[in-house]
Amino acid sequence: MKEQTLWSGGRLDSEMDREMIQLNNSLWIDQRMAKEDVQGSLAWANAIFEAGVLSRSEYDSIISGLKQISEEFSNDSFQFKSSDEDIHTAVERRLTEIIGPAGGKIHTGRSRNDQVVTDFRLWIKNHISEMKSGIETLQNAFLDRAEQDMGVILPGYTHFQQAQPILLSHWWLSHFWALERDKQRLTEAQSHADISPLGCGALAGSTLPIDRFKLAKDLGFPEPAPNSLDAVSDRDFVCDFLYEMAMIAVHMSRCAEALILYSTTEFGFITLSDRYSTGSSLMPQKKNPDSLELIRGKCGSQIGLLQAMLSTLKGLPSAYDKDLQEDKVLFFQSWDNTLLLMKVLTGVIGTLHVNADRCRQAVDTQAFATDVADYLVKKGVPFREAHHIVGKVVKRAEAKHLKLTELSLADWKEISSLFDNDLFRIFSLESAVNARAVWGGTASEQVLKQLAYAKSKMNTI
Amino acid sequence: MKEQTLWSGGRLDSEMDREMIQLNNSLWIDQRMAKEDVQGSLAWANAIFEAGVLSRSEYDSIISGLKQISEEFSNDSFQFKSSDEDIHTAVERRLTEIIGPAGGKIHTGRSRNDQVVTDFRLWIKNHISEMKSGIETLQNAFLDRAEQDMGVILPGYTHFQQAQPILLSHWWLSHFWALERDKQRLTEAQSHADISPLGCGALAGSTLPIDRFKLAKDLGFPEPAPNSLDAVSDRDFVCDFLYEMAMIAVHMSRCAEALILYSTTEFGFITLSDRYSTGSSLMPQKKNPDSLELIRGKCGSQIGLLQAMLSTLKGLPSAYDKDLQEDKVLFFQSWDNTLLLMKVLTGVIGTLHVNADRCRQAVDTQAFATDVADYLVKKGVPFREAHHIVGKVVKRAEAKHLKLTELSLADWKEISSLFDNDLFRIFSLESAVNARAVWGGTASEQVLKQLAYAKSKMNTI
Amino acid sequence: MKEQTLWSGGRLDSEMDREMIQLNNSLWIDQRMAKEDVQGSLAWANAIFEAGVLSRSEYDSIISGLKQISEEFSNDSFQFKSSDEDIHTAVERRLTEIIGPAGGKIHTGRSRNDQVVTDFRLWIKNHISEMKSGIETLQNAFLDRAEQDMGVILPGYTHFQQAQPILLSHWWLSHFWALERDKQRLTEAQSHADISPLGCGALAGSTLPIDRFKLAKDLGFPEPAPNSLDAVSDRDFVCDFLYEMAMIAVHMSRCAEALILYSTTEFGFITLSDRYSTGSSLMPQKKNPDSLELIRGKCGSQIGLLQAMLSTLKGLPSAYDKDLQEDKVLFFQSWDNTLLLMKVLTGVIGTLHVNADRCRQAVDTQAFATDVADYLVKKGVPFREAHHIVGKVVKRAEAKHLKLTELSLADWKEISSLFDNDLFRIFSLESAVNARAVWGGTASEQVLKQLAYAKSKMNTI
Amino acid sequence: MKEQTLWSGGRLDSEMDREMIQLNNSLWIDQRMAKEDVQGSLAWANAIFEAGVLSRSEYDSIISGLKQISEEFSNDSFQFKSSDEDIHTAVERRLTEIIGPAGGKIHTGRSRNDQVVTDFRLWIKNHISEMKSGIETLQNAFLDRAEQDMGVILPGYTHFQQAQPILLSHWWLSHFWALERDKQRLTEAQSHADISPLGCGALAGSTLPIDRFKLAKDLGFPEPAPNSLDAVSDRDFVCDFLYEMAMIAVHMSRCAEALILYSTTEFGFITLSDRYSTGSSLMPQKKNPDSLELIRGKCGSQIGLLQAMLSTLKGLPSAYDKDLQEDKVLFFQSWDNTLLLMKVLTGVIGTLHVNADRCRQAVDTQAFATDVADYLVKKGVPFREAHHIVGKVVKRAEAKHLKLTELSLADWKEISSLFDNDLFRIFSLESAVNARAVWGGTASEQVLKQLAYAKSKMNTI
Repeated sequence: MKEQTLWSGGRLDSEMDREMIQLNNSLWIDQRMAKEDVQGSLAWANAIFEAGVLSRSEYDSIISGLKQISEEFSNDSFQFKSSDEDIHTAVERRLTEIIGPAGGKIHTGRSRNDQVVTDFRLWIKNHISEMKSGIETLQNAFLDRAEQDMGVILPGYTHFQQAQPILLSHWWLSHFWALERDKQRLTEAQSHADISPLGCGALAGSTLPIDRFKLAKDLGFPEPAPNSLDAVSDRDFVCDFLYEMAMIAVHMSRCAEALILYSTTEFGFITLSDRYSTGSSLMPQKKNPDSLELIRGKCGSQIGLLQAMLSTLKGLPSAYDKDLQEDKVLFFQSWDNTLLLMKVLTGVIGTLHVNADRCRQAVDTQAFATDVADYLVKKGVPFREAHHIVGKVVKRAEAKHLKLTELSLADWKEISSLFDNDLFRIFSLESAVNARAVWGGTASEQVLKQLAYAKSKMNTI
Repeated sequence: MKEQTLWSGGRLDSEMDREMIQLNNSLWIDQRMAKEDVQGSLAWANAIFEAGVLSRSEYDSIISGLKQISEEFSNDSFQFKSSDEDIHTAVERRLTEIIGPAGGKIHTGRSRNDQVVTDFRLWIKNHISEMKSGIETLQNAFLDRAEQDMGVILPGYTHFQQAQPILLSHWWLSHFWALERDKQRLTEAQSHADISPLGCGALAGSTLPIDRFKLAKDLGFPEPAPNSLDAVSDRDFVCDFLYEMAMIAVHMSRCAEALILYSTTEFGFITLSDRYSTGSSLMPQKKNPDSLELIRGKCGSQIGLLQAMLSTLKGLPSAYDKDLQEDKVLFFQSWDNTLLLMKVLTGVIGTLHVNADRCRQAVDTQAFATDVADYLVKKGVPFREAHHIVGKVVKRAEAKHLKLTELSLADWKEISSLFDNDLFRIFSLESAVNARAVWGGTASEQVLKQLAYAKSKMNTI
Repeated sequence: MKEQTLWSGGRLDSEMDREMIQLNNSLWIDQRMAKEDVQGSLAWANAIFEAGVLSRSEYDSIISGLKQISEEFSNDSFQFKSSDEDIHTAVERRLTEIIGPAGGKIHTGRSRNDQVVTDFRLWIKNHISEMKSGIETLQNAFLDRAEQDMGVILPGYTHFQQAQPILLSHWWLSHFWALERDKQRLTEAQSHADISPLGCGALAGSTLPIDRFKLAKDLGFPEPAPNSLDAVSDRDFVCDFLYEMAMIAVHMSRCAEALILYSTTEFGFITLSDRYSTGSSLMPQKKNPDSLELIRGKCGSQIGLLQAMLSTLKGLPSAYDKDLQEDKVLFFQSWDNTLLLMKVLTGVIGTLHVNADRCRQAVDTQAFATDVADYLVKKGVPFREAHHIVGKVVKRAEAKHLKLTELSLADWKEISSLFDNDLFRIFSLESAVNARAVWGGTASEQVLKQLAYAKSKMNTI
Repeated sequence: MKEQTLWSGGRLDSEMDREMIQLNNSLWIDQRMAKEDVQGSLAWANAIFEAGVLSRSEYDSIISGLKQISEEFSNDSFQFKSSDEDIHTAVERRLTEIIGPAGGKIHTGRSRNDQVVTDFRLWIKNHISEMKSGIETLQNAFLDRAEQDMGVILPGYTHFQQAQPILLSHWWLSHFWALERDKQRLTEAQSHADISPLGCGALAGSTLPIDRFKLAKDLGFPEPAPNSLDAVSDRDFVCDFLYEMAMIAVHMSRCAEALILYSTTEFGFITLSDRYSTGSSLMPQKKNPDSLELIRGKCGSQIGLLQAMLSTLKGLPSAYDKDLQEDKVLFFQSWDNTLLLMKVLTGVIGTLHVNADRCRQAVDTQAFATDVADYLVKKGVPFREAHHIVGKVVKRAEAKHLKLTELSLADWKEISSLFDNDLFRIFSLESAVNARAVWGGTASEQVLKQLAYAKSKMNTI
């Protein structure tokens, strides 16, 4: 491969070892940034033309060559060669094939160190809307369910023990807000990526009289990176995205876990669509929530990808080190996972069936216990004492193998004389739910307000 | 410990197992939030007084009791009991000791689920300035060095091989910008933490007519959390901080690595102060950069703490699960590490001695190679060809065991007739440095501009 | 602290910075190895006496001084000083206090580099039986349950959907085997730790004529490390233990997850003892499986501790680097967590109540589907076709809202004429369970055999 | 894809969603186990024939069909279909194409749950020798260097500060021993993988009268897994390998880090072969150690892959969950990385040039300081005092800007009268090196013994 690299034919003598070529080659991954590489080169050609490096005709032929390459990428006719070490090499090689030796001028004053990270940041700029739209599509699935399932009551859990009855719509919305934070973080990560390293050269800045502010603007970046050493080695934005995409996965994993449990025979709150279930090769009755399990499982990988990047960065000493090449391997895995998982979860949410009756019947009457304590508090009992009294009631009911609502008034009065006939009015799921009427609470009116507030967050970033 | 927990004396019968008590107890860690627990309770007392739960005299005595507790924390006279399960229990227990059964009313309509995360968010609000000031102090150390060391030239490295000469001040500033990003991320993390969960109860919202907007405002939060289920289980802000503190550590680790290498006998660019060095128990001559190694080493732990939190969150199904209790164990370790490491690095940077002569002499003349290529480019040679020509020159110099600057003109001309006497003018470190005069480059004038720009970023967040 | 370190008073001038002292000091953690430090020094005193460094009287006084120190540690009367940098410094300082300048001879030919890792390996040797006994105690809890709960049938799950009925004893034993692998791995990790670094000096080996084979034997190690550079920097054994302890936690976390689900109202298979449950500060009816949630939550931390160590080791260049000091911080956290979590899980398992009726009633009749397919296979239908036929039966039953066992023979025959009256004999939980009679299967006889085999693994390592 | 899955055509109605198919499909990764899948099926066919499920002719046609499939895999003529969900489906589908409906009998009494993990364990059994041979090849590279470079002296470092002179061969061998531990761990991991899950069915054991001991033996496994629930969900062996392969990477990363530093201009101890170096697209003089940097960088990914698996396993509740499908994605990445990195490092080691003179000249005379202390110890000075005296000498030399060996006797005597003319005899690199003559020390004779011992470890496992 000696003749074809950007650096061969000069100082280094022998050809690379076969395994070294395999390890060193990054074309398989960085060709995803082919369009961005051309985009960056177009801007760079302009910058060095203005800096006097190119004649008008050289400039014209470079621009025209790059545009041809761009088209070749668009219509998939670009031919990579096995000697192309990376996308930058491929593009410069092809440019020279098309326009001759003048192609060898495009790299004047530039290094792959500033070029690759410019490409990477451009790629994010060009593709971020897919990720945002993926999040909002998933958020919409939750909003739709919240609207559609209004009125469905199910047990609310803490420690996965029944705690208090809640509206299913309230539960769906809880996942909306986690994603809303993800959207916020994504916007922040995007702004961290939005800076132009081009013109920083290998590490110390270009020797050409380049106007890096104009160059940044040409590429759509708000400003050029202020320190060339930092610019070529800064991969914070990659970490930011890997972190944020791990968080999206964590949120989806938590939702998936709950839905897996809700779809068991024992809970029976939901039934997944066959479109997102699989069967068993052995057991004919099986309908398995593989979609949700794969989401939960891939979350581990997302966390691992972040850890990989942080471990790789830790302790790197100088401006650019080749270790950084791993950044794209990790980033694109996480990116693709995230988009796919969001699509699948969106589909699962949108197509599942809610068994409203099962949800409602599942609420154990013990879930009224807090309401009973509130009843006593309203009669002037300090809360802590009320808590103890109700604890005793619960214990008695358990001893008698009765539901809380099946105890006789005599039983209640024996524990506290404050209990009276009006007590039984509180044993209504609707009352219990609607009693939580603070902002953010599960009462119907509040959930409707919350829904409206949630909708106001859409399409705003 | 049966009688003393907030939940005992009611439903559950037997005392906890000794090891279970040990595992379950969180007082050792959450007592760091003692002041915030009282602060939250003061606001809550106000809120439930306004909701009609407390009489004026109950309210007054609760407020007075809480203030006494606050003072006891301030003057370190608060006595914890072995039966105090957590800080919330300790405070309510003490309140009841001071004011009697009315203390049992403070928890009306509240749960430890909303209380603990309110305390945690308040703690961050109350302490964030320490972290920011730690970062800015470290940034200042870099700014001071950049000013102080102006004019010192040393080799710039990529792949840890000499690349081009740079200004040491430029190198110091490269670390400033990494921290500037950290400051930005920290501000974002802080804003993510800045929301009030109080009033969300155990999971479904309080049954009391609490004005959560007013309550949030009383505690200094811009808004109340809009979904009670999410509010009690959201630990995104903890992850955000663990991530951001891992990144600060990664940045410090990268700087430490470079300084460790620069302080070797072989490089000799810097000498650490004895105040940040240790000796050997065996080898009398040793002066070891333990400070920097410990910074680099602790960075591994910072990454691990983030991993721990993400693994713990992944797959948790419901509103609040006890797994979340690990959040503070991880957070406070990372917080304390970060502050300590920043202080030590600030000290190291501020007290080290730069061996300016060693820095300058270390620059290998091969580092002029790009300048030679630029020389040819100016004479019209396409860059790619110039690169090859200079590669051959380098090879010849190595074969002759000569420095690049020691080759005769004849040698040069034999490789390309374009080389002429004016070539030798470029072999000056100052010329090479000052040739990189784009924005962000290593030229003196640019580094001074960069320094001014960097200073403008201080004290702004 | 200048005068007191092992290396002060010589080359380095100024005192250490306060924060540097805090970061550098390891006494808080390495004093756990106090006894091992003395143990190592006793052996070392012997070795250097034999090497001619000590006179008989010096030797005697060193031995007697060390024994006194050992007693001081035993009866907790040893006084640490704030200037004691680490346990090695403390012991040598105290030795010199007791026996005078001759104490300054104990460190001849030794370095803290070989000393600390000798102490660490000795500590593991001295404490490994606690860990093994912790594992076996937990294994015994599973064995006891398996014996006690023989005959209890519950649904077996894959994808957390009901699959086939199984014996609860079979399920308990599945956790036994995971721990059996842990025990195996622990034994392997122990053997990796079992090598003597003493005599390797700082990095290159001692200059004294020490018989390292005899020295190793004196300390109970099977052999001395064969390469001094490797010996002082090898922390593989720490990683091995951190990995193995993370795996124990993963196994406990998986078991905890299942038990948390089995103890929900919806499953109701088990009831935790109050001794391992907590209540809610707000909801009087709550009985929460905090013990199991804390086990599951801490597992995240265990994984993080391993990550921390690997990240710290990665890329360390030379024999000993101070980064390694973090090893004990990570190791002891993981060690203590593991022991505590195992004790709590042992308690949970031993005290929980199995609701055998709920378990049995929970089995959905669809769990007989594989048995129906087997029925067809026995009549000569290829399995794949049998699978399809039974799938259709299941679908029909669902459409009719009937259990599989409630379909009429006519219904069955309509789908396949091979179904006949003998079909209904297979609808017995006992038959279904006992039909899995291969080795390792859930049939009663096989579970009893398995139990016997499991017991044969105890007390063997 | 409805008609083609192993479970379709029965209970589940609709076709899978497109993205769900993409997420669910594992053929792209599990087709690596194609030969093992056939191997397992051959053994299974035998087992069910013996169990009476197959007639002789069915058996013969299944065997012949499987053999044909095996050949199709061998000569790469097997045609996968887009509807093949995984390798198991592909093989059964093809078998039925070849032999007709009798192909539908191969899956009798088996589940993909026991099948996939059998394939996986077989794959490891079939390929482990590649990994071992990769390790031994790399170990041999170190042994070769140790032999070849005998006599070369270079500075030994701790804290990356010069400590004592050592033999380069001793340094090479230190890496040998780390790999020796890896080989040991690998052997242990292999033994953990070496157990047969086949016959465990979906989770509860097969209903056929299979002799699992014989079946295990047929496949080369020493024993069948003793618990069917555990057998289908146990992925400890995957973790063991991911851990072990992360450790190999950590060891290579540490070696790479040192070699990167040794190949800097400043150290200059080694020169990499051009075959393992790359140039710069911008700087003509550059020769970069990309091979070593990529090894160091990929180590982060190896750590991340382990973390991913542990995070994924943590908290999984039941026998088999689909999350486990991620196991092969992680394992094969790590496996391929490990083999490639080992090959590249082997090449780097074998082809690099040692600059023996630079190594020797680099030793700072301060590295004799311990020898000077030893000199005093031999004259009866307690080591701790000797240490202080030499510290003062070092300080004086530094103040006078002299090397330790350049101080006059008068200077020495002024600090301690014990110094005499014989002192100067110790200032020899060979003496210093050969003074470390304990087992494992850097003395020539010891290194030769160590080399012989190291060789005795080869080809033994």
